[in-house]
Amino acid sequence: MKQQVKAAEGKLGILTPGLGAVATTMIAGVTAIKKGLSKPIGSLTQMGTIRLGKRTENKQPKIKDFVPLANLEDIVFGGWDVYEDNVYEAALNARVLDANLLRDVREELQAIKPMRAAFDRNYVKNLDGKFVKDIDNRYELALAVMDDIKNFKAENNCDRIVLVWCGSTEVYFEPSEVHQSLAAFEQGLRDNDSRIAPSMIYAYAALKLGIPFANGAPNLTVDIPALIELAKETDTPIAGKDFKTGQTLMKTILAPGLAARSLGVNGWFSTNILGNRDGLVLDDPDNFKTKEVSKLGVLEDIFKPEVNPDLYGDMYHKIRINYYPPHGDNKESWDNIDIFGWLGYKMQIKINFLCRDSILAAPIVLDLALFIDLAKRANLSGIQEWLSFYLKSPQTIPGVPAENDIFKQLMKLQNTLRYIMGEELITHLGQDYEEELIETV
Amino acid sequence: MKQQVKAAEGKLGILTPGLGAVATTMIAGVTAIKKGLSKPIGSLTQMGTIRLGKRTENKQPKIKDFVPLANLEDIVFGGWDVYEDNVYEAALNARVLDANLLRDVREELQAIKPMRAAFDRNYVKNLDGKFVKDIDNRYELALAVMDDIKNFKAENNCDRIVLVWCGSTEVYFEPSEVHQSLAAFEQGLRDNDSRIAPSMIYAYAALKLGIPFANGAPNLTVDIPALIELAKETDTPIAGKDFKTGQTLMKTILAPGLAARSLGVNGWFSTNILGNRDGLVLDDPDNFKTKEVSKLGVLEDIFKPEVNPDLYGDMYHKIRINYYPPHGDNKESWDNIDIFGWLGYKMQIKINFLCRDSILAAPIVLDLALFIDLAKRANLSGIQEWLSFYLKSPQTIPGVPAENDIFKQLMKLQNTLRYIMGEELITHLGQDYEEELIETV
Amino acid sequence: MKQQVKAAEGKLGILTPGLGAVATTMIAGVTAIKKGLSKPIGSLTQMGTIRLGKRTENKQPKIKDFVPLANLEDIVFGGWDVYEDNVYEAALNARVLDANLLRDVREELQAIKPMRAAFDRNYVKNLDGKFVKDIDNRYELALAVMDDIKNFKAENNCDRIVLVWCGSTEVYFEPSEVHQSLAAFEQGLRDNDSRIAPSMIYAYAALKLGIPFANGAPNLTVDIPALIELAKETDTPIAGKDFKTGQTLMKTILAPGLAARSLGVNGWFSTNILGNRDGLVLDDPDNFKTKEVSKLGVLEDIFKPEVNPDLYGDMYHKIRINYYPPHGDNKESWDNIDIFGWLGYKMQIKINFLCRDSILAAPIVLDLALFIDLAKRANLSGIQEWLSFYLKSPQTIPGVPAENDIFKQLMKLQNTLRYIMGEELITHLGQDYEEELIETV
Amino acid sequence: MKQQVKAAEGKLGILTPGLGAVATTMIAGVTAIKKGLSKPIGSLTQMGTIRLGKRTENKQPKIKDFVPLANLEDIVFGGWDVYEDNVYEAALNARVLDANLLRDVREELQAIKPMRAAFDRNYVKNLDGKFVKDIDNRYELALAVMDDIKNFKAENNCDRIVLVWCGSTEVYFEPSEVHQSLAAFEQGLRDNDSRIAPSMIYAYAALKLGIPFANGAPNLTVDIPALIELAKETDTPIAGKDFKTGQTLMKTILAPGLAARSLGVNGWFSTNILGNRDGLVLDDPDNFKTKEVSKLGVLEDIFKPEVNPDLYGDMYHKIRINYYPPHGDNKESWDNIDIFGWLGYKMQIKINFLCRDSILAAPIVLDLALFIDLAKRANLSGIQEWLSFYLKSPQTIPGVPAENDIFKQLMKLQNTLRYIMGEELITHLGQDYEEELIETV
Ligand SMILES: NC(=O)c1ccc[n+]([C@@H]2O[C@H](COP(=O)([O-])OP(=O)(O)OC[C@H]3O[C@@H](n4cnc5c(N)ncnc54)[C@H](O)[C@@H]3O)[C@@H](O)[C@H]2O)c1
Ligand SMILES: NC(=O)c1ccc[n+]([C@@H]2O[C@H](COP(=O)([O-])OP(=O)(O)OC[C@H]3O[C@@H](n4cnc5c(N)ncnc54)[C@H](O)[C@@H]3O)[C@@H](O)[C@H]2O)c1
Ligand SMILES: NC(=O)c1ccc[n+]([C@@H]2O[C@H](COP(=O)([O-])OP(=O)(O)OC[C@H]3O[C@@H](n4cnc5c(N)ncnc54)[C@H](O)[C@@H]3O)[C@@H](O)[C@H]2O)c1
Ligand SMILES: NC(=O)c1ccc[n+]([C@@H]2O[C@H](COP(=O)([O-])OP(=O)(O)OC[C@H]3O[C@@H](n4cnc5c(N)ncnc54)[C@H](O)[C@@H]3O)[C@@H](O)[C@H]2O)c1
Ligand code: NA
Ligand code: NA
Repeated sequence: MKQQVKAAEGKLGILTPGLGAVATTMIAGVTAIKKGLSKPIGSLTQMGTIRLGKRTENKQPKIKDFVPLANLEDIVFGGWDVYEDNVYEAALNARVLDANLLRDVREELQAIKPMRAAFDRNYVKNLDGKFVKDIDNRYELALAVMDDIKNFKAENNCDRIVLVWCGSTEVYFEPSEVHQSLAAFEQGLRDNDSRIAPSMIYAYAALKLGIPFANGAPNLTVDIPALIELAKETDTPIAGKDFKTGQTLMKTILAPGLAARSLGVNGWFSTNILGNRDGLVLDDPDNFKTKEVSKLGVLEDIFKPEVNPDLYGDMYHKIRINYYPPHGDNKESWDNIDIFGWLGYKMQIKINFLCRDSILAAPIVLDLALFIDLAKRANLSGIQEWLSFYLKSPQTIPGVPAENDIFKQLMKLQNTLRYIMGEELITHLGQDYEEELIETV
Repeated sequence: MKQQVKAAEGKLGILTPGLGAVATTMIAGVTAIKKGLSKPIGSLTQMGTIRLGKRTENKQPKIKDFVPLANLEDIVFGGWDVYEDNVYEAALNARVLDANLLRDVREELQAIKPMRAAFDRNYVKNLDGKFVKDIDNRYELALAVMDDIKNFKAENNCDRIVLVWCGSTEVYFEPSEVHQSLAAFEQGLRDNDSRIAPSMIYAYAALKLGIPFANGAPNLTVDIPALIELAKETDTPIAGKDFKTGQTLMKTILAPGLAARSLGVNGWFSTNILGNRDGLVLDDPDNFKTKEVSKLGVLEDIFKPEVNPDLYGDMYHKIRINYYPPHGDNKESWDNIDIFGWLGYKMQIKINFLCRDSILAAPIVLDLALFIDLAKRANLSGIQEWLSFYLKSPQTIPGVPAENDIFKQLMKLQNTLRYIMGEELITHLGQDYEEELIETV
Repeated sequence: MKQQVKAAEGKLGILTPGLGAVATTMIAGVTAIKKGLSKPIGSLTQMGTIRLGKRTENKQPKIKDFVPLANLEDIVFGGWDVYEDNVYEAALNARVLDANLLRDVREELQAIKPMRAAFDRNYVKNLDGKFVKDIDNRYELALAVMDDIKNFKAENNCDRIVLVWCGSTEVYFEPSEVHQSLAAFEQGLRDNDSRIAPSMIYAYAALKLGIPFANGAPNLTVDIPALIELAKETDTPIAGKDFKTGQTLMKTILAPGLAARSLGVNGWFSTNILGNRDGLVLDDPDNFKTKEVSKLGVLEDIFKPEVNPDLYGDMYHKIRINYYPPHGDNKESWDNIDIFGWLGYKMQIKINFLCRDSILAAPIVLDLALFIDLAKRANLSGIQEWLSFYLKSPQTIPGVPAENDIFKQLMKLQNTLRYIMGEELITHLGQDYEEELIETV
Repeated sequence: MKQQVKAAEGKLGILTPGLGAVATTMIAGVTAIKKGLSKPIGSLTQMGTIRLGKRTENKQPKIKDFVPLANLEDIVFGGWDVYEDNVYEAALNARVLDANLLRDVREELQAIKPMRAAFDRNYVKNLDGKFVKDIDNRYELALAVMDDIKNFKAENNCDRIVLVWCGSTEVYFEPSEVHQSLAAFEQGLRDNDSRIAPSMIYAYAALKLGIPFANGAPNLTVDIPALIELAKETDTPIAGKDFKTGQTLMKTILAPGLAARSLGVNGWFSTNILGNRDGLVLDDPDNFKTKEVSKLGVLEDIFKPEVNPDLYGDMYHKIRINYYPPHGDNKESWDNIDIFGWLGYKMQIKINFLCRDSILAAPIVLDLALFIDLAKRANLSGIQEWLSFYLKSPQTIPGVPAENDIFKQLMKLQNTLRYIMGEELITHLGQDYEEELIETV
């Protein structure tokens, strides 16, 4: 496949609808890294390595030296928000990064000013920002967003653009007819159908222009037939949804380990305390319901109780999110896991994760942006399941069950990179070492 | 390959040198399971499933329905010990299983009486058992063990035999010349060379008879050139060493997850409290040194600090084992893990595992026995690296670096089963779903 | 005072309205203890000691050897419930104690059969028991309860009786006029006023007969002016309310320690998981509200934020109770406490308490019964604040602020015992050692 | 007693032998507090209140408004060290306080320069400081220290001086004849007897001048008959030893709570991880032995297993201290406590304390200094047991058993303050509320 991958020449513009805690932490970080002030810890594209060939060959290049990714030097940032704060001000307000650190990149961040948002308050009740486009019709809004993108590209002399949704979580709703086909969706835009969420307008604008789009929130956004159709039509890669961080990350690491050993689970209690804006919203039982549904699914998928009823058929899974201001953005989780082993004997695992939510999410934004840009250049289009490694509710090709086990997701990601570069896939079978040995002897 | 696998016909004898906590918990358990009193939780061979073909095919048979393993009904148990207690008495003394449960399998367990041990107290100082073979010369001892095996096989009408070392951990020593070739080793046996440990005598006897041997303790045993040579010569599969349970199991689950995300680690503190005989021994700084070396290696191997110096180059790893009688066999661990993410921001993970050591180890004995018997019938011989999934210090073909990541180990195990059965290996690439979709459209 | 205390001669009948988890655990326990099968761990009256005189005198008798308490041998048990199960059956259903242990006291427990309850389902919605008195009028009910008590006393040849409420928590309500005076209350009984809760009927019956009454639930019950008046009128001691166990016990131990050192607290997050009937009820946000109010008060009272605004003025206190069936009666709590010290530097304390609710509550029932019987014989009447040591929401003499610090409560309890017995009170001043020393020199 | 307390007029000089982490954190803090930059959190003398009279009187003055303590405004700091760094430099090196905070008090701290130390490297092997007095004879050294004190007093225009030992922990040794009487000790000084530790020289110098001395390390220092004798002779108050912080603080809070309820304990496992200089030293098994002995005693004293054999007779208590550089001065502890209740049922408590050692110790230095100065003015001399509230191994009048329960210690401290000021002692009996009520009615 290698011949087909276009080189990462020229500048890449990363645009985020939403310039809040996560997006500004990512932008401030990349800026500090470019200045040599820090390292891109937590970013697989920048720090990660990949094994090629046999273990005995000892070939483990950095991923960024193996696949042709955009250089950090060649990245330009932009975005939209409903508040007019520049990225420096927004980052200060988010209180994720140290004020001292932000001071060192102040000038660069102050220069990044949001574009006016495509917004509808019915989708995020607790936001009162006024920096929104003064356009009522959804189709007109989409055209305006396309203009924003084109202008940004021209002004910043970009070769390529990608979008990563970093906006607030929109209210929960089920897809309806207007989302079922591209035709219906475009008609809905023109009719200003209120079932089309703002995030979908950004996604439509991007895909129409052939620009990759990844979604970091649990909203539907690109996870509807209409936009999947558009993505295929314009040969554009898409990925979603919901950045995988914190407790869910931990679950998709631990649960596969328990399942690997056929250890039973009869209870998993997860509680979270966090004091940022996200926590306040999720403290409300109604808002939480949406998040809960998606979060609960992760364990079901990994344990497959229908296939393993004796081990996981009676598992009681409960997740609580508690607003707790003393901890700010430091989202802490405590899990109690009741497992059972040989002859049903009970054991317990307790995990206390003192984590920082936006610190875990920021490198994911960067990786998704760089990889989805690679996908575009490698002519991969539509749903990029290999990016599910980064996502809490991975979008899959319709009919294909999702894979939440982070190790299978990593395998998929790495083998996709090998596949793109024409390298042999790795199966970990390893019978060849034995065969080699025999030949040698 | 499928045609080559012989069917699992007739009886399989599982013999364990050592009938202590682990072995008796395994035997009592299998007996209870056969009587329908319990389920073989924690055993991959009995409870585990394996995916075949594409996710959309939804084929997930039980492993025992996919590969031809010996049935539990067809297993007979035996073993050696330096104490004369039958399995019922030994299980009671071990205090792992409930006396009520043991009462239900009393008769069967009482019928299993140890054979006299091949023993040398210099290798396990704190044992004073007298139920040992009254033979001085190591070669004579090996012949006596072979006789034991043959007699057991005949008396119990077995078709096949496997050995799994469940004896005490022998003292630490480095391999020397006598261990370097089969010739030197056999000479050493005849010369009664004191550098040949008792466990090696059992292993020699088994391999000489073409009987598979797996090692559950951290002793060298089959991990020496002489016995690897013998294994190849007699076409016998071997595997070792040290059952992977408890804290190390947890580490080889969690560490790959952190590494997957390129999260840095600057400290990992592990403490254990346990009150069984094993704990008493390991409370001694000298004895612990051996165990520590092997335990420390696990993280090194997974994190590869030489390849990822920015992430793991400064990791401080400390392991403490504390004898604490109030907990008996309930080995509890507490880990504090200091990680860092984006821009070096620090986070912490604390894990408290209230585990039961022998409960985790027992199904491993069973699985190793059944799988190594399968390997024999599938004509796989020498080191079975695919069984490293169960082992703390996996033996690999000389020159091949060990793989401690439990998920790669699982992949290796599953792809080996698919390979044995002539099924397609799984790479998790998944580009075929996309291609299928295109064809459909 | 000593001369006034009557001896504990003859039998003491302990009657509990409610023969559920707590009451049956207490009764089964005392029965096993009498048979020499166990020890009364957790009971201050049975196991506790008290220091008398100076430290140098080394006088530390057992409390039961110091004050004249009823002997366990002289206790008889009885009670009321809305279910007809005898105490053996009820204890089995409660699943607190091991079936093996219960078998050893089966006969004794089967002999204890409940009396028909005075019940009104409006006060405990989720109970459908039918073993209730077929009497509609509250005054008639009270008379029937008095008859029950008198009959029990006569049949069991008791010298004295005490009542301890171990019934379900009744719904929350505020006291109104009918509770404000004895006259209004008695009129209300006759008018069958629905604001008089069943627990108040038992309390009225007891107090009218001069029988001490303690309340283990958070219901008002004796915490109303009418019944306080009656208690004084009939010279009867009363105490309430809500047994202090689990997380609250831990809080009233730890919080005084932090306050002692002037360490600030800006957050205290408490979560509980429990799977018994109580947990199911409290999982409902409405039912929990009542419990929460009382639980939250404990820290306020100990930290006194109005007196110490710099230390505790901004404390965020949150309590969650989660129904989690896998744990049954094993109520587990996890607390995260955010404290700050010198110059505002932050520290954290995490407490994970794997507790057993009824095991902690059972000895409290016994102690309250024995001490309130002592109070009666020592001519102490009305509210016995010295028993607040056992209670989550201690009743105090009107106008006197409650004391929740368990160490001040213990001091009060011990000095009350010294006072009753005419011993010198202890102030821990200790200047006398110095003075002695001087005299000696 | 009130009439006897002299007012706190003029300046108080606080001198610390040892200007390391604890002393500089204290000095920097008081300086910041004086400048209004921070609050004296954790200091009972500054933040604490004391109840006077009955609860209903609601009199809770601040301690500093109740007893005549030196004002922070009137304090001057000084000290000795074997390194020449001024307090600013030493505080930076200690890495306890934020560099930003230290910058705000830089000038004041730079002005405080150590005096040359009285030092003997045999007592602290791992220190190589050269800023020591060039005097060999111990008696001469004592005279030189006296001169230092007098000069400091004069130069700083102080009214009164106190010394608090904040130097390194000296090696363990048992007292011998030279420590048994003042005469022997003074002879030893003159003979330059090597059994007299440097800390004793400072203590001797101070006491000889009638200057109060408190000891924050586990060294003997003033805890020898010779210096107790001197203290009485010169009417000087003394207190020791070992600041009570961290895990031991937590233990003396929690253990009294368990004992109060007669809950049994069969195991208490305590592990600590810390990465400062103290941790490095204590990682060595030999050095740790000393600390361990004193730490172990705390629980014995509180639980009194000889008085309560059924509850605490079989308690297994184990303490481990682990050097773990990633945590620096953030000493973290994890405790597992195995308790048992009613009928022997087992429960567990796990405590994870993320603490900061010097932050907890600093306000103790201040409080000890202010209170021991008060003692002097109140004519209290010799061992001040009421200060045991702050100390891990409280010194008591010979023959009087120590009291480690922090709540009894607090009671003792508060009643001593009431006693000094002629206020009524508090017994928490509270029968007076009842009597009042009766009188009212
Ligand atoms: N670990 C994590 O932080 C994490 C993990 C998973 C998912 N997420 C999701 O990522 C998203 C961003 O998280 P955050 O912490 O940065 O939140 P945030 O509230 O700090 O930032 C969101 C920003 O989006 C803006 N916004 C909302 N609607 C918009 C619109 N229509 N157009 C333009 N801007 C809009 C808001 O004004 C706000 O500034 C959220 O949806 C969150 O649920 C975050
Ligand atoms: N989770 C686990 O329990 C676990 C994990 C990893 C490794 N292991 C290893 O498994 C082995 C067994 O563990 P266990 O808990 O059952 O120990 P155990 O002490 O209960 O049993 C070991 C038995 O081996 C016997 N023995 C010793 N030397 C012998 C010899 N030469 N021949 C015959 N018998 C001999 C002893 O008498 C004893 O009965 C140990 O080496 C242990 O380190 C256990
Ligand atoms: N640690 C603890 O267990 C704990 C702590 C504090 C308070 N409490 C309180 O103690 C009480 C008893 O707890 P439990 O765990 O035994 O509950 P439970 O539900 O097991 O038992 C309560 C019993 O009371 C009976 N009952 C209800 N109303 C009655 C009435 N009017 N007359 C007679 N019987 C009646 C019920 O039928 C039931 O059998 C509850 O109110 C609980 O909130 C318990
Ligand atoms: N929470 C706590 O920090 C805590 C708790 C209990 C006890 N302590 C004790 O307090 C003492 C101080 O602790 P730290 O953390 O500040 O230690 P540190 O090592 O930072 O400081 C001790 C200082 O004493 C100096 N010193 C040693 N011998 C001396 C001498 N003879 N004369 C003058 N100076 C001398 C050293 O040079 C060093 O600067 C230690 O003994 C420690 O064990 C501390
Ligand atoms: Na919760
Ligand atoms: Na430890």
